[in-house]
Amino acid sequence: MKKNHIEKEKIIDVAVDFFGEKGYAATSIRDISKALDVSIATLYYYFKNKEELLLTIIEAIGDDLLKTIQKAKEVSDDPLEGLRRMLEAHIRLTEKKKSRVKIYVEEQHNLSKKYKKIIYNQHRHIYDVYAAQLKALQEAGTIDAEPVSVTAFAMFGMVNWCYRWFRKDGALPIEEVSEKIIHLLFYGIVKPEDKTSR
Amino acid sequence: MKKNHIEKEKIIDVAVDFFGEKGYAATSIRDISKALDVSIATLYYYFKNKEELLLTIIEAIGDDLLKTIQKAKEVSDDPLEGLRRMLEAHIRLTEKKKSRVKIYVEEQHNLSKKYKKIIYNQHRHIYDVYAAQLKALQEAGTIDAEPVSVTAFAMFGMVNWCYRWFRKDGALPIEEVSEKIIHLLFYGIVKPEDKTSR
Repeated sequence: MKKNHIEKEKIIDVAVDFFGEKGYAATSIRDISKALDVSIATLYYYFKNKEELLLTIIEAIGDDLLKTIQKAKEVSDDPLEGLRRMLEAHIRLTEKKKSRVKIYVEEQHNLSKKYKKIIYNQHRHIYDVYAAQLKALQEAGTIDAEPVSVTAFAMFGMVNWCYRWFRKDGALPIEEVSEKIIHLLFYGIVKPEDKTSR
Repeated sequence: MKKNHIEKEKIIDVAVDFFGEKGYAATSIRDISKALDVSIATLYYYFKNKEELLLTIIEAIGDDLLKTIQKAKEVSDDPLEGLRRMLEAHIRLTEKKKSRVKIYVEEQHNLSKKYKKIIYNQHRHIYDVYAAQLKALQEAGTIDAEPVSVTAFAMFGMVNWCYRWFRKDGALPIEEVSEKIIHLLFYGIVKPEDKTSR
């Protein structure tokens, strides 16, 4: 006999595995119910449909990221150190929750307009936290990041892209990768003696 | 009566529109045949199935990118200028073929193992062209990009991410965005007077 009770988080975890491995479109609610050994009716008690499950996953990783960077920012009074910590926490989250980041990037387009709006607003919030930090550093004369939008999006690209290539069994641990990426963003790759020509 | 003849490129263009707008999974061969006003049999004459159409699109944009960066690299004898031109051409391609880049990033996971391997090998080829350029600059003492892999992937992230946020009707033209991104990669955001503390 199938179970009637199940933790919501457990459903989400199994959905993350399926969406991450097979992809959202190729996964059915039936796949998830079988893997959890619960009835389809039980799943529908928690989630109206497959799309709501996708929204929940995407919203949760966004929320996670928002809290993570806000917390990291507060650790230091030095705004450049604050930015460094935000990026470090962001990169580590990308590694820790790789499947969820993949779903965030690659499956978001499956959401309906109404749900996309929710995620867009959340993304705007994350963007604003980073943009405020960049603006403060810009005004203090510490960085040259005009326009802030391009700097922020270039940063997001570098950091979020990690889910595509970073391997736990690779040559470098995530701590070192994080350090290298932040160094690149802060100081660039061209050696100081050549910087005079810019 | 439906047409029997159609250019292969026309099929690809319409498939790009559908996959880019509705997504790969939600698009049927029937959608494409209707939009082109050709029979399904005609489409199957050119493509074995929907997946082969996806592979063709992804392979073509990869091939386009490979040729684009190789050509850009040869324009200058100065390797740093060569890298700058490669990145500039890459960013412009991302803007020009936005829907195709979106499909490349977000729909690649729908390919079967055999097809994924083809794309992986192609990606390896693109990676190698960039890595060779970075290594040459590293050996000449012009840049500090160790390890080359992290620098290359951070670069790909910054550049490829453009498809998600760049708007033709936005505040900045692609030429300026490209210049800012390359400046960030080469020199970083921290102002020279603060660089002594690194």
